[in-house]
Amino acid sequence: MGRDVKVLVLLEPDPELPPPPLDLLPADVDVVQVGPTPSDEELAGATVLYVWDHRFADLGPILRRTTQLQWVHAASIGVNRLMCPELSAVTLTNSRGVFDTSISEWVLAAVLAHVKDLRETWRLQTETTWTYRTTGRLAGTRAAVVGTGSIGRAIADRLSRLDVRVTLVGRRPGEDPTFGTVHGSDDLVSIAAAVDLLVLAVPLTPGTTALVDAEVLGALGPRGLVVNVGRGPTIVESDLVDALRNGTIAAAALDVFDVEPLPADSPLWAMPNVLVSPHMSGDYRGFEVDMMDVFTDNLERWRRGNSLRNVVDPAAGYVPQ
Amino acid sequence: MGRDVKVLVLLEPDPELPPPPLDLLPADVDVVQVGPTPSDEELAGATVLYVWDHRFADLGPILRRTTQLQWVHAASIGVNRLMCPELSAVTLTNSRGVFDTSISEWVLAAVLAHVKDLRETWRLQTETTWTYRTTGRLAGTRAAVVGTGSIGRAIADRLSRLDVRVTLVGRRPGEDPTFGTVHGSDDLVSIAAAVDLLVLAVPLTPGTTALVDAEVLGALGPRGLVVNVGRGPTIVESDLVDALRNGTIAAAALDVFDVEPLPADSPLWAMPNVLVSPHMSGDYRGFEVDMMDVFTDNLERWRRGNSLRNVVDPAAGYVPQ
Repeated sequence: MGRDVKVLVLLEPDPELPPPPLDLLPADVDVVQVGPTPSDEELAGATVLYVWDHRFADLGPILRRTTQLQWVHAASIGVNRLMCPELSAVTLTNSRGVFDTSISEWVLAAVLAHVKDLRETWRLQTETTWTYRTTGRLAGTRAAVVGTGSIGRAIADRLSRLDVRVTLVGRRPGEDPTFGTVHGSDDLVSIAAAVDLLVLAVPLTPGTTALVDAEVLGALGPRGLVVNVGRGPTIVESDLVDALRNGTIAAAALDVFDVEPLPADSPLWAMPNVLVSPHMSGDYRGFEVDMMDVFTDNLERWRRGNSLRNVVDPAAGYVPQ
Repeated sequence: MGRDVKVLVLLEPDPELPPPPLDLLPADVDVVQVGPTPSDEELAGATVLYVWDHRFADLGPILRRTTQLQWVHAASIGVNRLMCPELSAVTLTNSRGVFDTSISEWVLAAVLAHVKDLRETWRLQTETTWTYRTTGRLAGTRAAVVGTGSIGRAIADRLSRLDVRVTLVGRRPGEDPTFGTVHGSDDLVSIAAAVDLLVLAVPLTPGTTALVDAEVLGALGPRGLVVNVGRGPTIVESDLVDALRNGTIAAAALDVFDVEPLPADSPLWAMPNVLVSPHMSGDYRGFEVDMMDVFTDNLERWRRGNSLRNVVDPAAGYVPQ
């Protein structure tokens, strides 16, 4: 079906990721597994590059060595590490949609565990200590979800289902058929002042870098919880550490960090009011199958000469709505 | 407004409970705070007993000492500790409704924390260890909620909102406008075999004592999670310990136990797959105000000679639907 194709599957540098289920690819596709610096022989004749490892960050050098690559597909939603001037010559697609349910459930888990103080219950359990406390309720609280992509919308949807009053925040103000008024991130300080929970689900772009700083955290206030499932640099990490240390905000649940793995000397590790999650909020058992399905669907379109799904706007750094 | 009334408020034995906000009671009510064995002087003229402490278990002796008490109100939903033959001479009401939202949110917190392996993430965090894993998804899983009272229904409702396929289990089979077919608890073994999650939200009655035993746990299976927010003796605790130890089931989240506080020598404390919660799943900050509101609403009805809300059927041991 359609044109012949040689696909390079780029597997490094993260040794922990599940291997891609290559057996799900059509049998007549030429598949070559490669590392971050493919050989000339590997590159020869390859038109498609499937970046399996979301930590790979050296796409530019590969693209400079070949004019044959036409399509790069990322097994991730965030593609900030792949951004380079050479992308203007190829099509970049991502895996939008795969993590919507799993990440939104992870956010609920982190938020509800905070509201119900489960970490302290487990700590007291390790001390064989029966200590009755009262905890909180989620229903009726207010949340701002920054990010109007499919993950941000899935988070906003699930929080709404649990009777949280959700404000959706995007780059620019607007109206949304599901969530009503969308606020622009320029107003994040005043938005943070009005909510209990600030969830970040934005791609890393120049516009989202350092979006959350000391001023936003100060506005969120001492009962506020920050959850980040997007990319670390959206928060000024040193400001966050200060805010958590000083009680400027109550707590944070973080799945992403400035540097990953989070360095051992980061003060975040030892903070009792921080959840340090190793960039796994979206990765459910079997996710690699659904991830591969997104690619094979696009691969079929590619071979038939049809337009691809989930095409990233290289100027924006994400798939436009 | 209405007849004069002397109310005894029974405050012991649990020293951890928040005090009742007695200032919310009408100013013209005679309120006397008493312990588990009120004096004759305290009892004299009292027609209403408000059992604030849910651990109080000696109602019979009090009722035998007076014929004036006409109404006993419990600041709890479960009233098993108050059951006694002498109750036939008085009206017993409970605080149905107060904990519906908070307990159902606690169940979601416990279930999602299990699905997302948050306890292990926190444990690894204490070791400054970045260990990527894949976890589960809640959507699409199957749950049985045993208990058709307002708490059971609130739990079933919230699980459904998160795309869990819920089976409601009651004493007898029937049809429910919201949840469709209600299964009878006589079928609990086959029901357990068909679900991933078994939630118990039943009052403690002869019919619910030892409802969950080795056979039910065996049917639930090695991926199964048990959550109990009702009363401890609904599960045969020794069977549960064996099932958790042997991997017959995956995990348990327990807010109630055979003996509370859970004795220090219970093996449940040290189990990595058990959440030991000190009977606090319903108790949100400020719950005592809502609890008192339920009582004052009934007190107003009482003084006006109107019928009371939340009247417990002494033969059944709970408020009938």
